[in-house]
Amino acid sequence: MEPITRLDHIADRLSLKGKSYRVAVAAAEDANTLGAIIRAAQAGFAAPVLVGNKQAIEETARLAGLSLNPDWILHQPDHASSVAKAVELVKEGRADVLMKGLVNTDLFLKSVLHQENGLMPKGQVMSYVCAIELPAYNKLLFVTDTAVLPFPDLKQKEAMLRYSLKMARRFGINKPKVALIGASEKVSPHFPNSIDYALLSKMAQRGVFGDCIVDGPLDVFLACDPASIEIKGVPTPVAGQADVLLFPSLEACNAFYKGLMLFAGGELAGMICGPSMPVVVMSRSESENSKYYCIALSCLMADD
Amino acid sequence: MEPITRLDHIADRLSLKGKSYRVAVAAAEDANTLGAIIRAAQAGFAAPVLVGNKQAIEETARLAGLSLNPDWILHQPDHASSVAKAVELVKEGRADVLMKGLVNTDLFLKSVLHQENGLMPKGQVMSYVCAIELPAYNKLLFVTDTAVLPFPDLKQKEAMLRYSLKMARRFGINKPKVALIGASEKVSPHFPNSIDYALLSKMAQRGVFGDCIVDGPLDVFLACDPASIEIKGVPTPVAGQADVLLFPSLEACNAFYKGLMLFAGGELAGMICGPSMPVVVMSRSESENSKYYCIALSCLMADD
Repeated sequence: MEPITRLDHIADRLSLKGKSYRVAVAAAEDANTLGAIIRAAQAGFAAPVLVGNKQAIEETARLAGLSLNPDWILHQPDHASSVAKAVELVKEGRADVLMKGLVNTDLFLKSVLHQENGLMPKGQVMSYVCAIELPAYNKLLFVTDTAVLPFPDLKQKEAMLRYSLKMARRFGINKPKVALIGASEKVSPHFPNSIDYALLSKMAQRGVFGDCIVDGPLDVFLACDPASIEIKGVPTPVAGQADVLLFPSLEACNAFYKGLMLFAGGELAGMICGPSMPVVVMSRSESENSKYYCIALSCLMADD
Repeated sequence: MEPITRLDHIADRLSLKGKSYRVAVAAAEDANTLGAIIRAAQAGFAAPVLVGNKQAIEETARLAGLSLNPDWILHQPDHASSVAKAVELVKEGRADVLMKGLVNTDLFLKSVLHQENGLMPKGQVMSYVCAIELPAYNKLLFVTDTAVLPFPDLKQKEAMLRYSLKMARRFGINKPKVALIGASEKVSPHFPNSIDYALLSKMAQRGVFGDCIVDGPLDVFLACDPASIEIKGVPTPVAGQADVLLFPSLEACNAFYKGLMLFAGGELAGMICGPSMPVVVMSRSESENSKYYCIALSCLMADD
C-alpha cells in the first residue's frame, strides 16, 4: 500500500477499512471537542461516546450550532465521574479511543495513569508522537516528544523510538528513516545524548527495532535536507530524507513543532502513546483541522 | 529611526553611515568566503583584509571567477599564522570585524579565546545571536543561542539576553520584547529553567537591562502569535509580538532555527557575541545571502 503523505488522507485510509471506531470523550461539554468529533462521525470512521453532563452537552451543542445524536451521550454528573467512566469504557474494551474534553489535563492523565483503574500497562512509558504535514517537505514528518517527557533517558528514548516507528509503519512507511536530533552530527561529551543515540543506532543496526534506519546525532539539515548532506559530506543513511525526528528534550521538540505550525504552514495530528489504547489530548491553540486529524490518527492507531 | 525589518536593509543602513568597516578574514583562501566579502566590499560597507597564503587566495578567486583587489591581501604562509595575524589586527584596532575563512572552527575559536592574545575580555561569556527573517512574521526575530552554549546557566543566559538586546536596539527597536522560551508558560520544578527565567524577568522589571520587556517561560505560540494569547488567555506583556527568543538549550535553539531555514523560507544573519569586536563564523550549509548578511550584521555591530 502507498504511504500516507497528507493528513487528510488518514480519513480516506480509514474509510477503506469500513470500520467505525468508538471514541469515548471524557467531559464532552466543550464546543471545540464536539465540533471535531461530530466531523469525524460524519466522515464515518468515529462512533462518538460523549461522556458527561447530558444537559450541558446538549446546551453546548445548541449554542455552537452543532447537531447531535442524543444516543451518543452517556450521562455523568460531573468531570471526575466522566473521566472515570470514559477510562473504564476503554479499559473494558467498550471503546477504542479515549479523548479529553473540557477537563483539566492533569486530572485527565491521573486517571489514565491510575495503577489499578488506568490504561497504562505496568512499566510502560507514556510519550507523545505528532505527524506533521509541511508544504515544504515531500512527506509527513513524525516528531517526538512534543508534550510529555521533559528530558527522556535511554529507556524513554527507546519507547519514543518504538512508538514513532509503529506510527510511521501504520502510515505505510515500510522502512522508516529516523534521525536522532542534536545540534550537529558531532559525537561529543558536551552532549550526553550522543551516548544514548549511539546505543539506539547500534541496537537498530542489530535489528532490535525491525526494518528501519536509525542514525544520530544529526542536525535538522542533515535529517531533512539532501543538499546539506552533499555540502557537508556527512555519511548518514538517513540522507536528508527523515521520516521521524526524535528530539533530546521536550523543550527542543516543542519549540521546533510550534515554529513550523506558526511560520511554515504546518498542520499536525498527535496522540499519547503508551496506554493500551490511543489517547487524544488536544491543545486549545490547535486548529480545527488539527483536532479532526488527531481523532483520525487515533482511530488509525487503534487496531492492534 | 525606523526599525530594520528585513536583512537586506542592514546594508542600506550601513551605507547611510558612509563608513567602510575593516573585515579581517582569517585564512581567506575559500571561494564562498571570498564571494561574500567581495559582495560586501562592492556594496561599500566592508574593506576586506584577506589574511592568508597570497598565491592560494589569488588562485581560489581565479577559479571561482571572482575579481580581487591584490592590495586586500595580507600574506601569511599557513592557517595558524593567518588566524594569529587576523586576531592581532582586530586586537590592535587595525580591523573592526574578525571573520573565519578556510580554517577549522575549533582552531579559530582557540585563538579568539586565547587568554593573552585573544579577543575575550576577562570573565566575558561567548555566545551566538542570529537575526532571522521569515516571510510569515512581520519583523525580524532575534534568537539565541544557536551555536555556542550547550546548556546556559543563569550568568550565561544573562549574557545572551544582553547581547540580543544590544543587537535588537542596534536594529532600531527601542523597547525590545524578549520571550524566554519553554515548552509552555507553566512555572514548574520539572523545568529548572523556570527559576532562571523568573530571575531574569524580575531583573528586567527592576530596569537592569534598560528599556525592554522580558517574560518567560513562554512557548513559541505565546511568544510570536497574538491569536494564541487570546485563545489561552495568558497575560504576558510580550503579547505574541516577540523581537527576541532566548532558548533554554543549544539543541532547542539550533533545531528551531534550522527548521525555519528549511521549511519556512527563513534567511539569517548571525555572529559571535562576547569578544571585544564582532566575530563571524559561517556554516558551510548557510546560503550565499546569509553569508553576506552575516558580514553586514557584524559591521552594523562594530561601532561601540
